Amino acid sequence: MVAPKYETALIVGAGNGLSASLARLLSGEGVRVAVAARNTEKLGELSKETGAHAFACDAADPNQVKQLFEDVQRRIGVPDIVTYNASARLRGPFVSLDPLAVERSLAVTAFGGFLVAQQAVQRMLPNNRGAILFTGASASVKGYAQSAPFAMGKFALRGLAQSLAREFSPQGIHIAHFVIDGAIRSTRGLTEPVDKPDSMLDPDAIAQSYLHVLRQPRSAWAWEIELRPWVEKF
Amino acid sequence: MVAPKYETALIVGAGNGLSASLARLLSGEGVRVAVAARNTEKLGELSKETGAHAFACDAADPNQVKQLFEDVQRRIGVPDIVTYNASARLRGPFVSLDPLAVERSLAVTAFGGFLVAQQAVQRMLPNNRGAILFTGASASVKGYAQSAPFAMGKFALRGLAQSLAREFSPQGIHIAHFVIDGAIRSTRGLTEPVDKPDSMLDPDAIAQSYLHVLRQPRSAWAWEIELRPWVEKF
Amino acid sequence: MVAPKYETALIVGAGNGLSASLARLLSGEGVRVAVAARNTEKLGELSKETGAHAFACDAADPNQVKQLFEDVQRRIGVPDIVTYNASARLRGPFVSLDPLAVERSLAVTAFGGFLVAQQAVQRMLPNNRGAILFTGASASVKGYAQSAPFAMGKFALRGLAQSLAREFSPQGIHIAHFVIDGAIRSTRGLTEPVDKPDSMLDPDAIAQSYLHVLRQPRSAWAWEIELRPWVEKF
Amino acid sequence: MVAPKYETALIVGAGNGLSASLARLLSGEGVRVAVAARNTEKLGELSKETGAHAFACDAADPNQVKQLFEDVQRRIGVPDIVTYNASARLRGPFVSLDPLAVERSLAVTAFGGFLVAQQAVQRMLPNNRGAILFTGASASVKGYAQSAPFAMGKFALRGLAQSLAREFSPQGIHIAHFVIDGAIRSTRGLTEPVDKPDSMLDPDAIAQSYLHVLRQPRSAWAWEIELRPWVEKF
Repeated sequence: MVAPKYETALIVGAGNGLSASLARLLSGEGVRVAVAARNTEKLGELSKETGAHAFACDAADPNQVKQLFEDVQRRIGVPDIVTYNASARLRGPFVSLDPLAVERSLAVTAFGGFLVAQQAVQRMLPNNRGAILFTGASASVKGYAQSAPFAMGKFALRGLAQSLAREFSPQGIHIAHFVIDGAIRSTRGLTEPVDKPDSMLDPDAIAQSYLHVLRQPRSAWAWEIELRPWVEKF
Repeated sequence: MVAPKYETALIVGAGNGLSASLARLLSGEGVRVAVAARNTEKLGELSKETGAHAFACDAADPNQVKQLFEDVQRRIGVPDIVTYNASARLRGPFVSLDPLAVERSLAVTAFGGFLVAQQAVQRMLPNNRGAILFTGASASVKGYAQSAPFAMGKFALRGLAQSLAREFSPQGIHIAHFVIDGAIRSTRGLTEPVDKPDSMLDPDAIAQSYLHVLRQPRSAWAWEIELRPWVEKF
Repeated sequence: MVAPKYETALIVGAGNGLSASLARLLSGEGVRVAVAARNTEKLGELSKETGAHAFACDAADPNQVKQLFEDVQRRIGVPDIVTYNASARLRGPFVSLDPLAVERSLAVTAFGGFLVAQQAVQRMLPNNRGAILFTGASASVKGYAQSAPFAMGKFALRGLAQSLAREFSPQGIHIAHFVIDGAIRSTRGLTEPVDKPDSMLDPDAIAQSYLHVLRQPRSAWAWEIELRPWVEKF
Repeated sequence: MVAPKYETALIVGAGNGLSASLARLLSGEGVRVAVAARNTEKLGELSKETGAHAFACDAADPNQVKQLFEDVQRRIGVPDIVTYNASARLRGPFVSLDPLAVERSLAVTAFGGFLVAQQAVQRMLPNNRGAILFTGASASVKGYAQSAPFAMGKFALRGLAQSLAREFSPQGIHIAHFVIDGAIRSTRGLTEPVDKPDSMLDPDAIAQSYLHVLRQPRSAWAWEIELRPWVEKF
C-alpha cells in the first residue's frame, strides 16, 4: 500500500475559507502551493502566511486558464494536485433571473471547471499521476427552488467529475468530487450561533478530508464523499 | 380526477425523430403545434404533414428565444406545453476537446433549456397551468468517459428541471424530466439490426409516454421517468 | 410500435386504495383480475364491484405464495400482469423498535416481493412476456429518521426490482418500479383538507400511470417513475 | 476542530480481510478491539496478532446480538466504534434461488445490521457519542442481474444507515456508509493478476479510510464514501 506523494498544488477559486485552509494544510505538509482567484487582493494575507503563490485568473476564460497553468508551472512546477473551488451562486425567483448573469454563473461554476481540468489533465497524463478534486455542494445532487442556476452549474460540475473519473482513473489520475452540504464557517464573521456549536462546516475539517483523499493509495480511491455538519438536515 | 386539457405546444429542438413524433401525436390530439429549430429546412416536411408551425431559433440566444415565444404566441397563442429536446453532443478524448466547442455544447444542451423554460414559465405562471418537459439522456445521470461535455450539459439540464419542479409544481406547472437511455430510431436510416428487434427507442413510443405525462392529473404527477429499450444494458 | 396485450392480472397487497383502483381499471379493460391480501374481508366489496377473484395469502410465506399462484392459475390462468403493493410500515424511535416486528416488516415489504416475483417470473419466462410492477414509496430512495424498518424494506424492494429489470427485461418481461411520494387518498376517510385540493395521491391517477406502463411497447420501457402530488415537498 | 477520541471498537463480521485490517489498525492506535463472527475459528490468529477479543455470534439472531454486546461491554467496555461488515452473498439465476437461502441472506446482510445498530445506539445515546460504520458494496446502489438477494440486502443496509444518519447524527453519533466497489484482496490467496497491479481493494487501504472517518470532527462528517480500485469499471 503506497500513498501518493504529491509535491505541487494549484487551488483555483478563493471565495471561501476552504481554499485558505487547503493552502495552509498543504504548505504545512511541504507541498508547494499556488492559489488562483479572479481578485488577488484577498490572497495577499494568505500568501504572506503560507508562502503560497497568488495568481489572478478568471477561471471562465480559456486563455487566462492556459496562461495560469503556464505561470504556475514556471513558478512551482507542474501541479500534481489541482482543486476547483470556484463557483458563482445566483439565487432568486426564476422568472426574474437575468440570462446574462445565469450564463456567467454557469461559466464560473462549471465551464471553468472544465477549462482547469483540461489544462491539468494535459500535464498529468504524460506521467500518469496527479489528483483533481472538485468542490460540490448540496446543489450538486438536489435542485432547490429559486436556485436553478446554481443547481445547473453544480450538477454539471459533478457530471464533469464523474466523466473524468471514468476516463482518467485507469490512467493513474485520481478524480474526486466532494458534496459539501452546509454553510462553510468563515474567518470573516460567518459563524454559527453559540447555542449551535459546529453547525457550520469548519474549512480546516473539510481540508483534512481532501488531504485524506490525496493520500489514498490507488487500490481504494474515493470518487465521491458527502460532508455535512452533524446537525445539518438532509 | 381531472386530466389537464392543453391546447398549444411548442417543441424546441428537432435533431431527432422525437420532435416529429411529438408534433404528429399532439396535432392528432387537436393541439396547435409550433416547432423550433436552428435549421428550419428539415422542418418543412413535418409542417406540411402535421400543420405544425415552424420557427427558426438558436435556443442558446436569449433574444432569439424571447422572439420565438412572441412569434409563437402571435401564431398559435401562449404555449401551455413546452418541450426542450435540443442538445449538442460532443465526444472525444478529453484532452483534445476544443474549449469553444465545449462552451457551445453547454449553451445548447443546458443554457438554452434555461432560456426556453424562463420564457415558458413567465407566460404560464399568471394562469397557474402548463407543462414543461425536458428530454434527458443516460448522460443525465451517468458521466461517461470521453463524453464530459454531454454529461455536463445533461446533468445541468436535469438540475434545472428538478429545481423548476420544486419551484413551480406547487404553482400548477407540471415539470417533468425524461431519461432517454438508448439510441432513438430515426426515419433517416438510423435503425437497429434486424436480429435485434426494438433495440432502439421508437420515437413514437417515447412520444406516447410524454403524452401520458401531459394527461396526468395534478394529484399524481411524474417528475422523472426513465425509458430504455428492453435489451439496453444499464 | 406494438403495445402489449395482457389478459390476466394478479394484484398482491390491498392495504390502500391503489389495489382497488387497479382492479377496477384493469377489469374495465377486459383483464381478468385476481386480488390477494392477508385479510380477505376487505376484498368482498371489491370482488362484488369488479368481479375480481379474491385470495387470502400471507405474502411473506413461501408456501402460501406458491399456493396463491397455483390457485390463481386455476381460476383465471397464468397472470401476465403482477403487481406487488404489500408493505408493513413500522415507525417510532429506533432504540425502542421490537426486533420481531422489524423482522416481520422486512418480510412483508421486501421478502414477499421476492417470493411473488419469483413465482411470477417462473411462469412468465417460458413465454417471454409479462409485466411485474413494484409499488415503492419516498422511503424507497430516502431513509427517514424514526423509520428505519420501512426504509430497509422499501430500499430492498427497489434493489430487487432493479436487479430483475437487468435480468429479465432482455427476456421480454417488463419490470417497473414506482416511487409513490406522498399519502394516497383513501376511500375510508383519509382525504386532504379542502383548502389543499389534490394534495394527496388519487389512487385512480396512480393506476392510470400503471396502465400506461403496461401498454408501453418494449422499445421504450419505463423502469422507474416517480409520482407525487403537485404540492408535495421533495 | 476537535477529532473524536474513541477507545473501544466492536467489529462484526469477519468474512474478508477488511475486519482483520481494521482490528490491526485500531489496535495499533490504542483502541481496545472486539471482533465477532459466526465462526470464531478463523479469529484465533487475528486475536493472537492484535490482542483483539473474539466472540462467536450469529448477527441475525436478536438474542445472540444482545448477548454479544453484554459480553463485549464486560470485557472491553461499551464500544464507541461499531462496524457492520457481515453479509451473505447469494448469486444465481433468479428462478432457481432457494427462498430459505434468500431469507437467510437478507437476515445476515440487512437484519443483522439493524440488530447490531440498535444495541450500539442504545449504549451510545446516553453519552451522545460514538460511531457506527456500515460496509456496503456496489450492490448497495446498483442491482445486478442474477444477484437480487445481495442487492436487496445491501440496498436495505444502506436505507438503514441513511435513516440512522438522519435520526442520530444530531445526537452526536456518527453514522457512515461505505460503498466498496470491487473485490477485496485477501490474505487467503484472492489477489489480482500481476499485470493488473492494485486492481483489487487493499483491505488496509479501506481501513485507513474508515479510520479517517472516525477522526472527522462533527462539523464535517462524511455520511457516504465510495471506494474503488483505480481501474475498476463503474
